[in-house]
Amino acid sequence: MSSQQGFTLSGKQFEALCAAFETADVQKRGSIDVQIVPKLVQDVLGSSLAPSEKDAIRLRAESKAKKGVLYFADFVEVMSETLQTTTQWGKLTTTLSGYVGIDTLQEQMRKKALKRGFEFHIMVVGGSGLGKSTLVNTLFKAQISRRSCTNESEGTIPKTVQIKSVSHVIEEKGVRLKLTVTDTPGFGDQINNENCWLPILEFINDQYEKYLSEEVNVSRKKHIPDTRVHVCLYFISPTGHSCRPLDLEFMKRLDKVVNIVPIIAKADTLTLEERYAFKKRVREDLEFHGIQFYPMKSLDEDEEETAINQALREKMPFAIVGSDREYQVNGKSVLGRKTKWGLIEVENKNHCEFALLRDMLIRTHMQDLKDVTDSIHYENFRRERLEMHSEFAGPTPPYHEMGESNL
Amino acid sequence: MSSQQGFTLSGKQFEALCAAFETADVQKRGSIDVQIVPKLVQDVLGSSLAPSEKDAIRLRAESKAKKGVLYFADFVEVMSETLQTTTQWGKLTTTLSGYVGIDTLQEQMRKKALKRGFEFHIMVVGGSGLGKSTLVNTLFKAQISRRSCTNESEGTIPKTVQIKSVSHVIEEKGVRLKLTVTDTPGFGDQINNENCWLPILEFINDQYEKYLSEEVNVSRKKHIPDTRVHVCLYFISPTGHSCRPLDLEFMKRLDKVVNIVPIIAKADTLTLEERYAFKKRVREDLEFHGIQFYPMKSLDEDEEETAINQALREKMPFAIVGSDREYQVNGKSVLGRKTKWGLIEVENKNHCEFALLRDMLIRTHMQDLKDVTDSIHYENFRRERLEMHSEFAGPTPPYHEMGESNL
Repeated sequence: MSSQQGFTLSGKQFEALCAAFETADVQKRGSIDVQIVPKLVQDVLGSSLAPSEKDAIRLRAESKAKKGVLYFADFVEVMSETLQTTTQWGKLTTTLSGYVGIDTLQEQMRKKALKRGFEFHIMVVGGSGLGKSTLVNTLFKAQISRRSCTNESEGTIPKTVQIKSVSHVIEEKGVRLKLTVTDTPGFGDQINNENCWLPILEFINDQYEKYLSEEVNVSRKKHIPDTRVHVCLYFISPTGHSCRPLDLEFMKRLDKVVNIVPIIAKADTLTLEERYAFKKRVREDLEFHGIQFYPMKSLDEDEEETAINQALREKMPFAIVGSDREYQVNGKSVLGRKTKWGLIEVENKNHCEFALLRDMLIRTHMQDLKDVTDSIHYENFRRERLEMHSEFAGPTPPYHEMGESNL
Repeated sequence: MSSQQGFTLSGKQFEALCAAFETADVQKRGSIDVQIVPKLVQDVLGSSLAPSEKDAIRLRAESKAKKGVLYFADFVEVMSETLQTTTQWGKLTTTLSGYVGIDTLQEQMRKKALKRGFEFHIMVVGGSGLGKSTLVNTLFKAQISRRSCTNESEGTIPKTVQIKSVSHVIEEKGVRLKLTVTDTPGFGDQINNENCWLPILEFINDQYEKYLSEEVNVSRKKHIPDTRVHVCLYFISPTGHSCRPLDLEFMKRLDKVVNIVPIIAKADTLTLEERYAFKKRVREDLEFHGIQFYPMKSLDEDEEETAINQALREKMPFAIVGSDREYQVNGKSVLGRKTKWGLIEVENKNHCEFALLRDMLIRTHMQDLKDVTDSIHYENFRRERLEMHSEFAGPTPPYHEMGESNL
């Protein structure tokens, strides 16, 4: 039985691999063409391999192949390495003779998460008067964000971009969420708005820095408070023309650093035709400038995710109307904006796309926004930071070269 | 509004703190006795503070107190710091005016965990013939572990302690678990068993080392494969007398390194009176030698956990009978051991304590075993390793001192 890093196959698993190999080796030469290995592995493991997984298998097979063919022992090694990266074992899954109870793991995990509660950090960026605070209050149906102009003395616009965070804990059906909202009053409000993305980038990186320094601490907290920004809502002014240079500059600078969700603010100022044309134009602008917004195509993990996210991407940027005022419609109270000529119902999908934004941010993709922040943006920050570190200080020896053991 | 590390209280939160402070300041001196602060914080946050949390609050308050009293600004700081460590905000929780949908976070998290699958690593240690393999097969109702004596040529006992791991993926109701079982044939089987715990300790530490070196890697995997040992089942021979010196030596050496669950093997050899007396004696032995077994009293997080775990601790070590043979009892098929004088039903709680062990290991505490491994045992290893590192290599500057920013 082959062993790879202490990884041993059981007799039955070994037999299943034998059988698969023999079926593939049609000419009975004791070897198989390296090209068919990804397909063969997929047959054994079931049909759910991601494209990245298939590529990894191809590379593994090619590195072990001799003259384009793979012998059985090498095939077993390719298989063993692949088995370590997934729990999708397909035909190698061990059958049970009765109920064991591992399905309770979900409930065990749920209970623990419920006890700890969740954390989420949302940032809103855009010129003043685009309804940033109102939108946050509409999203979370509470007085979360205060209009910065009522906060400042005499409602003057600050001279530089400011960063203001406020935290709330909200609770629904026993689920507690610590919600931090960061507002950026003064963004784009100056005559010269050069580098006005800089304080925002610094703030986001400061949060990563704080997390990193907790993570590398010798004595770590059991749970590192997560103050990293999980999503940045960028408010595009409903000009009806195209993105302004400042919009593009901001998103170009930050799209690799944070999950950006661009939205068209105050969409009630656009007619349906204008809205359609403006959305199309903004999408073209973003594509032309290579700006990536959340959910990123390159991060879709399987076909199911691609289908869901592609549908979202095609509807983005969402055209939004926010309101924290309630009106009565057919005896039901709805959030909306009332004018002489009608009532815009914020949560009515026929009136605006607020509900699409809310569903994505809160009900379907909140955990994914956190995961992408952790596994992509934070990891990028960390990698650059550590590479810089080793440049300054010279390479430090990896832990496993430090000594024989720490008994 | 006071700010602590960028942490800002909202107007309503501030008002609530004002009100609480004024109620506590009965003599209207503008300050409160430092002794009452933990109680006051608890009143504001609700009644669910853990003893460790209360201690932390006491320390925070004492560090800011002047002559035993705390002024309002300092109280706000104590409060702000405490709010960052918990999502239990009690009276400071923000009320919602309608359904937001944050309860979907549980389902979002569940879906992600389901896709990834779970990992669990169980180790069995004890002399040969105590039924280690049989017990694992009984626990997971599958041919997981092979008797090592049938595996070796001619069933001879190995000359030294060996470490043999085998991995399986099992699936129930869509939940996939990658289960790794590590067996230790040869443990305690020699004439001189000195240091026979050493290869086992090294194996456990090797897994921590592997995880640590992945964790500190500059380019990390999205998901670090978790090969750390989550639980070590230690098989005590049913002598009816007391623990042997080897048993105590092993557990003393390893109880700070891994979750140890001691069990009395082959309990069918003991009468009910003998079993009761032996369990009592083993518990006394463990206590006398200061051996900690899982679930550790010091890690209980709240009263609910203490109640559940204390009930378990009082029944431990579980007296076990294992069997992978099925018999028919009243038309139902049960796992058991049949003798001339009766049938021992393994899963019958009146016959032995197998069901208690299985429930704890799989159905109620599996996630906790993983969490304790991660947050206690692995963290201990990591801390010692990094302290050793800095001793050898001199202190490396913390990341946040490396430069101003990495823009």
